[in-house]
Amino acid sequence: MELTGRSIIGTSRGAAVGATTLGFNPLTGEYLEPGWYSASEAEIEQAIKLASEAFLSYSRLSGRERGHFLRTIASQIESIAEPLTARAVAESGLPVARIQGEIGRTCNQLRMFAVLVEEGSWVDARIDRADPQRQPIPKPDVRSMLRPLGPVAVFGASNFPLAFSVAGGDTASALAAGCPVVVKAHPSHPGTSELVGLAISAAVAECRLAHGVFSLIFGAGNESGAQMVRHPLIKAGGFTGSRAGGKALAAIAANRPEPIPFYAEMSSVNPLLILPGAMHERGEALAAGLHGSLTLGAGQFCTKPGLVLVRDDAASAAFLSRLAALMGAEQVFTLLNPGIQKAYDTGISLLDHNDLVKTLARPSNSSGATAGPGCQTVAALYQTTAASLISSPKLQDEVFGPAALVVTWSTTEELIDLLLSMEGQLTASIHSNEEDLADYAAILPILENLAGRLVYNGFPTGVEVCQAMVHGGPWPSTSDGRSTSVGTRAIFRFTRQVCYQAFPDSSLPGELQNGNPQGIWRLVDGRPTQDSF
Amino acid sequence: MELTGRSIIGTSRGAAVGATTLGFNPLTGEYLEPGWYSASEAEIEQAIKLASEAFLSYSRLSGRERGHFLRTIASQIESIAEPLTARAVAESGLPVARIQGEIGRTCNQLRMFAVLVEEGSWVDARIDRADPQRQPIPKPDVRSMLRPLGPVAVFGASNFPLAFSVAGGDTASALAAGCPVVVKAHPSHPGTSELVGLAISAAVAECRLAHGVFSLIFGAGNESGAQMVRHPLIKAGGFTGSRAGGKALAAIAANRPEPIPFYAEMSSVNPLLILPGAMHERGEALAAGLHGSLTLGAGQFCTKPGLVLVRDDAASAAFLSRLAALMGAEQVFTLLNPGIQKAYDTGISLLDHNDLVKTLARPSNSSGATAGPGCQTVAALYQTTAASLISSPKLQDEVFGPAALVVTWSTTEELIDLLLSMEGQLTASIHSNEEDLADYAAILPILENLAGRLVYNGFPTGVEVCQAMVHGGPWPSTSDGRSTSVGTRAIFRFTRQVCYQAFPDSSLPGELQNGNPQGIWRLVDGRPTQDSF
Repeated sequence: MELTGRSIIGTSRGAAVGATTLGFNPLTGEYLEPGWYSASEAEIEQAIKLASEAFLSYSRLSGRERGHFLRTIASQIESIAEPLTARAVAESGLPVARIQGEIGRTCNQLRMFAVLVEEGSWVDARIDRADPQRQPIPKPDVRSMLRPLGPVAVFGASNFPLAFSVAGGDTASALAAGCPVVVKAHPSHPGTSELVGLAISAAVAECRLAHGVFSLIFGAGNESGAQMVRHPLIKAGGFTGSRAGGKALAAIAANRPEPIPFYAEMSSVNPLLILPGAMHERGEALAAGLHGSLTLGAGQFCTKPGLVLVRDDAASAAFLSRLAALMGAEQVFTLLNPGIQKAYDTGISLLDHNDLVKTLARPSNSSGATAGPGCQTVAALYQTTAASLISSPKLQDEVFGPAALVVTWSTTEELIDLLLSMEGQLTASIHSNEEDLADYAAILPILENLAGRLVYNGFPTGVEVCQAMVHGGPWPSTSDGRSTSVGTRAIFRFTRQVCYQAFPDSSLPGELQNGNPQGIWRLVDGRPTQDSF
Repeated sequence: MELTGRSIIGTSRGAAVGATTLGFNPLTGEYLEPGWYSASEAEIEQAIKLASEAFLSYSRLSGRERGHFLRTIASQIESIAEPLTARAVAESGLPVARIQGEIGRTCNQLRMFAVLVEEGSWVDARIDRADPQRQPIPKPDVRSMLRPLGPVAVFGASNFPLAFSVAGGDTASALAAGCPVVVKAHPSHPGTSELVGLAISAAVAECRLAHGVFSLIFGAGNESGAQMVRHPLIKAGGFTGSRAGGKALAAIAANRPEPIPFYAEMSSVNPLLILPGAMHERGEALAAGLHGSLTLGAGQFCTKPGLVLVRDDAASAAFLSRLAALMGAEQVFTLLNPGIQKAYDTGISLLDHNDLVKTLARPSNSSGATAGPGCQTVAALYQTTAASLISSPKLQDEVFGPAALVVTWSTTEELIDLLLSMEGQLTASIHSNEEDLADYAAILPILENLAGRLVYNGFPTGVEVCQAMVHGGPWPSTSDGRSTSVGTRAIFRFTRQVCYQAFPDSSLPGELQNGNPQGIWRLVDGRPTQDSF
């Protein structure tokens, strides 16, 4: 497959008109051909119109047909795994094994949603049967289920060029729900995006679906994305990225003449709390584990534990000195792109110059290791007190990259105040032994209100893709803390409840027919059952 | 119970300070004692702080304990049924039987949610068990369920002084979910609100719950409600009322520093489509049924079918002349309050003077029947064409009261254009025979995108409270078309997904423990089951 630098508008390609933007290799500092053309307003308009037209047919495909489509996308992606890996490595600076793993995860996600929609019970079908004899008025037959919202705008993330990008979680869950998708490619990996976009297009053709089921928009600035979210035919959006970008798009979505659901996953410092008993028992192992979690993927995970909460005691001091030694090693990390590198430099520079903050590890100061050909940098570790963090909320700001801030607290009361002062988070982790659990019982309810996922004696990086996963959390970690972007529950984000009262059986969706032709689980007169009647 | 005109702030009462607003009897035009004091900013602040404090304990009650509380509220309300009925009749102008029915519905709703939370499966508990042997990395133990959002602001509706007011659907579902509630009383039925508020307070005391679980705010203007929705400790809102009010509050909720979910049910004209076969077969019966639905409760239902779509043919002409005769009868209706009366007068006056609209029935023109002691008025029936409605979208505006606009269409294409031109609706109804269903097969998918509930060969007024009901719909019928305000699914609106990774069994909520102590339905490794393990 040859890269053309042109958007994918249904089955057509965008025009090769106007300025182009090259890709960039953050490892070598080289620019990557070909240049990408920004889609015109008319092309974006066309993609959205096609998506809206496709919705009427695509939303009415059976779960089996949608599952087949998702599986076909996965196969198409696997068929280009080799060039795709090479391109994604070049565009992200991430290692080959990581990209290979991410391709696997992307295809597994697509197949997980295929299994979900082929089985079909996810629609929450409910049937309350009629009772014509009921007094004082007859009870009508009422049935309902989840149906797709309409065309969805998806924004690819830079830090997961496959699993959270063109064919990533948002696309997979929206397509599974029955929504056509218009993706805005992330400019950090345009070639990867185009390759995956072509794979999806090939799947659309192979499954003979309406052309507008999928489009891919390239655009250098923010305007193309804003145009997508503003468009009256777009009915929902999914985004993973910066807080500034997510807030801007969420505000557009909320203030349209017709507001739409917009799911932005924005930022999180993922507090990791080490309780005294655990610290005493295994401080050294915790330092090693935490160092691994902090530097995994050069610290570029939304679940990186950027805020480490430890009690101010001797065991913590030993732990900190171990962690500082690990973080202070002269390991060079490559960040994803110059924008992230600049934000990282700004973030650690603010910490460097903050009087409330002590620098525990900052190898670049001595070695100049940040001077690489591309987006190279080094780790950084800082320390502050609970009182400082409470008085200076800016210290909670995410620093995306291999850096962390350790916060020391003295009493349980101070720890509680610290946790209550924090913004909403994707995750909160707690390292504890049994005694700690009893001593700090008041902490769990607070963590539960703080984050979408609580991790016990583990590290939050690495998000299992499964039925029970919640990758979401209270504002500002996400724009809609009710939902998840990972796992099968993500499909709910692109659905609404639709009710059918007193309909003839043959006019009902199969999921709601008496005979239960798909054999799904349903709530019939309040009772979960797979039975027909 | 004596009415005091003072807000209920947890277990305290608001101060009797400042100007008061009297109640009003729309039937007689009399003002009703005592006057109601507007809660001060400090009192509202106090109510919300108490709610937030109460959240930590209330959110952790068992389903059984919450169920008991809901049942106690129902019993408390029933214990004052007689004075409550008298007061609600005086304040609403609605007949005694209707108010008695509404008290029954209110208590049934509370008990329905009690059954739901006592049984407990509603939390969507999911467990994906660990697999330490998995390659390349071990699979962690991941469990998740729905948990309450936090304190909820509820706005009572004028047209259901019981079932959608202080102890109505929003309050019942929020309390069931585990959220404390601060209710803004509707000024149209202050005494009814105070009586029900006292009943809930008595239930809080009887169940020995934290005081802040419930508060009731009186306020003459819009500012108290705005203060509630703006408050950082309020985590969600529920509203039923006008489009202007709902939009204003939803915008406040969306543009807070921390946006929150806000569920406003605003307005709907509930298109009712009569297909030619059905019209030919049973036009006269349809006219009688429609007249009943249009004038039920003086046309003051959010599900009133205000837009009637009929083909321009001879059968429809006969139907229209029958409907016009019924609507033209000199029956006097009493509207809920002077504000609604004024809006109704404005709405029909706009139709009276619209050149695109023909008046079919308007008994007040001849009889002057609107001149009653209170909020008396008469019905009105209008007619326009599909082309006019498409070209003049203002004709879709809801006229709250006993009025309707009939829209004639000629071809299927015109009908489709008409439906596609319409705003989102709570309901859409279709009267049809088998032949119609085949001839107009293209209509159903369009109706499904238009409304939250589709009614077949029936009328949309009368909303069954059950598991499968959806009372919600695309914007602007509601501010969040994904959800419902009626039926058990309403509980989902006040919840978020929370995930626990690798937690010790004893630290998990009961719903997620291995032993499944409550015996609820759970998704274990992807399989629905009530089993423990």
